[in-house]
Amino acid sequence: MAKGEVKLLDFWASPFCMRVKIALAEKGVEHEDSQEDLFGGKSELLLKTNPIHQKVPVLFHNGKAVLESTIIVGYIDEVWPSNPLLPTCPHARAQARFWADIIDKKVFEGGAKIWQSTGEAVEVGKKDFIEILKQLEGALGEKDYFGGDSFGFVDIIAIPFSSWFLAYEIFGGFKVEDHCPKISAWIKRCLQRESVAKVLPDPERVYEFVTTFRKMQGIE
Amino acid sequence: MAKGEVKLLDFWASPFCMRVKIALAEKGVEHEDSQEDLFGGKSELLLKTNPIHQKVPVLFHNGKAVLESTIIVGYIDEVWPSNPLLPTCPHARAQARFWADIIDKKVFEGGAKIWQSTGEAVEVGKKDFIEILKQLEGALGEKDYFGGDSFGFVDIIAIPFSSWFLAYEIFGGFKVEDHCPKISAWIKRCLQRESVAKVLPDPERVYEFVTTFRKMQGIE
Repeated sequence: MAKGEVKLLDFWASPFCMRVKIALAEKGVEHEDSQEDLFGGKSELLLKTNPIHQKVPVLFHNGKAVLESTIIVGYIDEVWPSNPLLPTCPHARAQARFWADIIDKKVFEGGAKIWQSTGEAVEVGKKDFIEILKQLEGALGEKDYFGGDSFGFVDIIAIPFSSWFLAYEIFGGFKVEDHCPKISAWIKRCLQRESVAKVLPDPERVYEFVTTFRKMQGIE
Repeated sequence: MAKGEVKLLDFWASPFCMRVKIALAEKGVEHEDSQEDLFGGKSELLLKTNPIHQKVPVLFHNGKAVLESTIIVGYIDEVWPSNPLLPTCPHARAQARFWADIIDKKVFEGGAKIWQSTGEAVEVGKKDFIEILKQLEGALGEKDYFGGDSFGFVDIIAIPFSSWFLAYEIFGGFKVEDHCPKISAWIKRCLQRESVAKVLPDPERVYEFVTTFRKMQGIE
């Protein structure tokens, strides 16, 4: 499956980086991983290749940079077309991109409203976050995965956030499973997949990271 | 080029709808146009097919809805592949999607900071907007179009906003041309193209629309 050198500017707790690592794993593509020190100072390479956003992930393929996680996952699907992640039918592809876009715009930001807040704002954040998850649950419906019977593009875009859910649950005082049982079952299903299991960090470790980050930001 | 029935839920002043109409025109695809009355009340069809965003454009192709303008333009390019809008090379495609995403996230919102504001906030909005345009000018460089020699995906995503520039210039007290001469030349170049010229409304009409909208919102 090798098609030249693949390198990733990564950060272990970033759900956006996890997407890229899952997509590479699904395609059986090995990569060199370079962890960024987001607190200690971003690397020159990151700042040079992504001057507008200054964010991980950055994928280098044969020396050329590809930016933005959802775009990178689509790129990986085009360059290594076996085991396709996006459906082949244009309408189903457009639907997958629509849900990926909703997840991009709402899930991380929705969760941040919980863990970056205190007091009454936490309740507002929790309500918003559960509403977003319920929309996703509606899109999932009775299917095993967002695209149907097989793990694909939207699953890869969404599943990394689940490693942050424990932190949201602890800071928000709720359980995702109580509100969205189908999403909860989908998470367990995805975690049985090798590509997901090997990439997603332990939610306890993410919770500790979020706790440290809250302290650094002076929250509480 | 016909491949079944094509219908668009449209609003004449929406740059997002203009994207879809330019893409259809580039492909030589005829469509039935249904204007939404965004002030008088959105149609049942719009609310039913796009319950999350409740926004135009909605493209119906053979009865199936496709949502979100950038996704719709990509869909059109896949369904009617002749005269391709996206490049064929995966890396160039990823770059086009990256710039489309920047435009999606920043240009309309940047302009709104000018025309939805008064006083000192207008100056802040103007500064931000010019900065975004300068980033785009950097991406355009010395090329005729964003993708090189031919009009393509990123041009279609970006050019509709130019019909709002007169309003930004009047409310912001500046000229785009003074700050971004290459963007200004690119706009003139695109307007010579039939697909663009026939879709973009007269900037004076957009200015009147924005003026009315400001009054309705109680701005000034």
